[in-house]
Amino acid sequence: MTDLPLAPTLPPDLDTPALVIDLDVVERNARRVASAVSERGIKLRPHVKTHKSVALAKLQMEHGATGITVGTLGEAEVMADGGLTDVFLAYPVWAEGPKVARLRALAERPDLLFAVGTDSLAGVAQLARAMSGSSARLRVLIEVDPHYGRTGAAPDVAAEIGRAAESAGFELLGLFSHGGHAYAGGDSIARAARDELEALAIGEEALVAAGMAAPVLSAGSSPTALGVLAAPVTEVRPGTYLIGDAMQVALGATPPDGVAIAIAATVVSTAVDGQVVINAGAKSLTKDMAPYMKGYGVIPAYPDGVIERVSDYHGQVRFPPGAPRPALGEVVAVVPNHACPTIDLYDSFVATRSGSVVGRWPVDARGRSG
Amino acid sequence: MTDLPLAPTLPPDLDTPALVIDLDVVERNARRVASAVSERGIKLRPHVKTHKSVALAKLQMEHGATGITVGTLGEAEVMADGGLTDVFLAYPVWAEGPKVARLRALAERPDLLFAVGTDSLAGVAQLARAMSGSSARLRVLIEVDPHYGRTGAAPDVAAEIGRAAESAGFELLGLFSHGGHAYAGGDSIARAARDELEALAIGEEALVAAGMAAPVLSAGSSPTALGVLAAPVTEVRPGTYLIGDAMQVALGATPPDGVAIAIAATVVSTAVDGQVVINAGAKSLTKDMAPYMKGYGVIPAYPDGVIERVSDYHGQVRFPPGAPRPALGEVVAVVPNHACPTIDLYDSFVATRSGSVVGRWPVDARGRSG
Repeated sequence: MTDLPLAPTLPPDLDTPALVIDLDVVERNARRVASAVSERGIKLRPHVKTHKSVALAKLQMEHGATGITVGTLGEAEVMADGGLTDVFLAYPVWAEGPKVARLRALAERPDLLFAVGTDSLAGVAQLARAMSGSSARLRVLIEVDPHYGRTGAAPDVAAEIGRAAESAGFELLGLFSHGGHAYAGGDSIARAARDELEALAIGEEALVAAGMAAPVLSAGSSPTALGVLAAPVTEVRPGTYLIGDAMQVALGATPPDGVAIAIAATVVSTAVDGQVVINAGAKSLTKDMAPYMKGYGVIPAYPDGVIERVSDYHGQVRFPPGAPRPALGEVVAVVPNHACPTIDLYDSFVATRSGSVVGRWPVDARGRSG
Repeated sequence: MTDLPLAPTLPPDLDTPALVIDLDVVERNARRVASAVSERGIKLRPHVKTHKSVALAKLQMEHGATGITVGTLGEAEVMADGGLTDVFLAYPVWAEGPKVARLRALAERPDLLFAVGTDSLAGVAQLARAMSGSSARLRVLIEVDPHYGRTGAAPDVAAEIGRAAESAGFELLGLFSHGGHAYAGGDSIARAARDELEALAIGEEALVAAGMAAPVLSAGSSPTALGVLAAPVTEVRPGTYLIGDAMQVALGATPPDGVAIAIAATVVSTAVDGQVVINAGAKSLTKDMAPYMKGYGVIPAYPDGVIERVSDYHGQVRFPPGAPRPALGEVVAVVPNHACPTIDLYDSFVATRSGSVVGRWPVDARGRSG
């Protein structure tokens, strides 16, 4: 690990395990990234799957975001109901069965600018069936794959998909990519950003050559969005930057003081030598892991401790002999490895400023994974 | 992997990703284990952290369970509110701050037989402070460590902790252990069971030599509880047996047709060669993994597919060239690796019998991890 994260100060008397998010850090992150992105002449459309909170999405809008990104129809519904008005579902949604009515309802909302992703001709055909007879003109972006290998068409077939989308009567907004290989460590951030720029440029060229345009070129994981991407990209969709987590800090994508999140956990057992056990396990921290992480989260106050095993309600923190460790009953702040799936475990979070509670805020779209 | 799990039949028209639980399989599992445990002359106190459902806990009681086990105060509260009357919190609960009132309220409920775990003298002292002045006599079991190395006192100090518990005015019910190393693979189940028997026997001997008794000797993970444990153990606390999962089948602890759970997922992209992408990722399947598993869940209908990477809403299923694979838009049943954290991601499940929907049942204690 290159850097250890700092953790927000915990308020007293929490009922642990508790999800704590420091709004001062959140606002600093929101401003820092909005201004960095704006200086490069591009727009910020943060991915709210990280926090799933209407209030935090609105905070991002107040700090310069021009719209939001979601990953599921459920997140789109929650955010639209909460008053967000420009929502891009950056996912190759497959609308059959109960999803048809949900997609149409979103597309037809008069208070919402809604767009969806697709990455294939069959995907366009399926969206066309779902929207058949609707009064709304579906807004779509084509996903291109920047050598990440998850979803996304090969960039040179963007024109074919674009023509199908236009034939179906959709409004073709442009292209998007996700350079998820930025998370591999090493020089992965620079490489993933280069790959995204290249994929979007090839895709745009193909669209233009076929007589279409791509006014939106949307890119970016949190790591690539923050330091690298610029024109011809027109917007970036980072998510985790607002909250931070141990993996973002280890990657250098978030500064150590950019971590707004902690799981407050209590030491419940020191009965076994060489370790303490906290009451935050897999159901409070997740099992998210990366080769460059040493444990299932980081305890900044006790940097020698490694959370080496988690079961549902136990986190086993191993210490080398003689290393300082928390006492039985002590409450510690754990910075989770990955904010997104961790926050999704909690129905609400304790919102703080400098260690004082300012409220308990709902994780509005918790569990809305489809 | 020794055996591939079978998956319950999916009903049509699900809004994916969806958690599906087949009640026919659940009832068969409940009967099978209750009768096997009863034949060995011991009691069954299933751990409901697996399913967190009041209705399924009651189903277990109707099929021969003599009480239930929970892992958190929150689960105890939900189950007691739902009408369960005999609840053991098999965890070294540390009751300070908001947990004091919660512990006392549970201990004082007239409709509830409630017991908690502890594994240290300091733990007993903390429980005594929390219960100070209460009208209720707290019922406690001492946790002993069967060489698993998570929580639990060394068995030979059980007497010291027992004396402290009796001095504090608690009712000492006995001892409990958890042989979590049963999940290591190989001969781990037999070894963990042997270790549990030994730890409980040493602990009991220490209590008896000091003039106390241990009427309850409570043991068992799902793997050890099902085939191995017998007297002097008086009760077992398996959890996953009711639902099954891919890890239980791989370990031989659940038969392939004992899997009641599936995550229904839709193929949303086939744009990248050699794989299909389903709309169930880390927020629908978890990242639970074991060295003997090949991917983040198993798709029984397409056994050559390996779910080799999951991000929040994407599951990338890799196929060898030429292997049968699901088509774009197809809905597949995924058997998750580990039922417990997976079910905890969903607010409700689709209850089925032989592929027909019989209801949507709440996961009552979802997210109640403290």
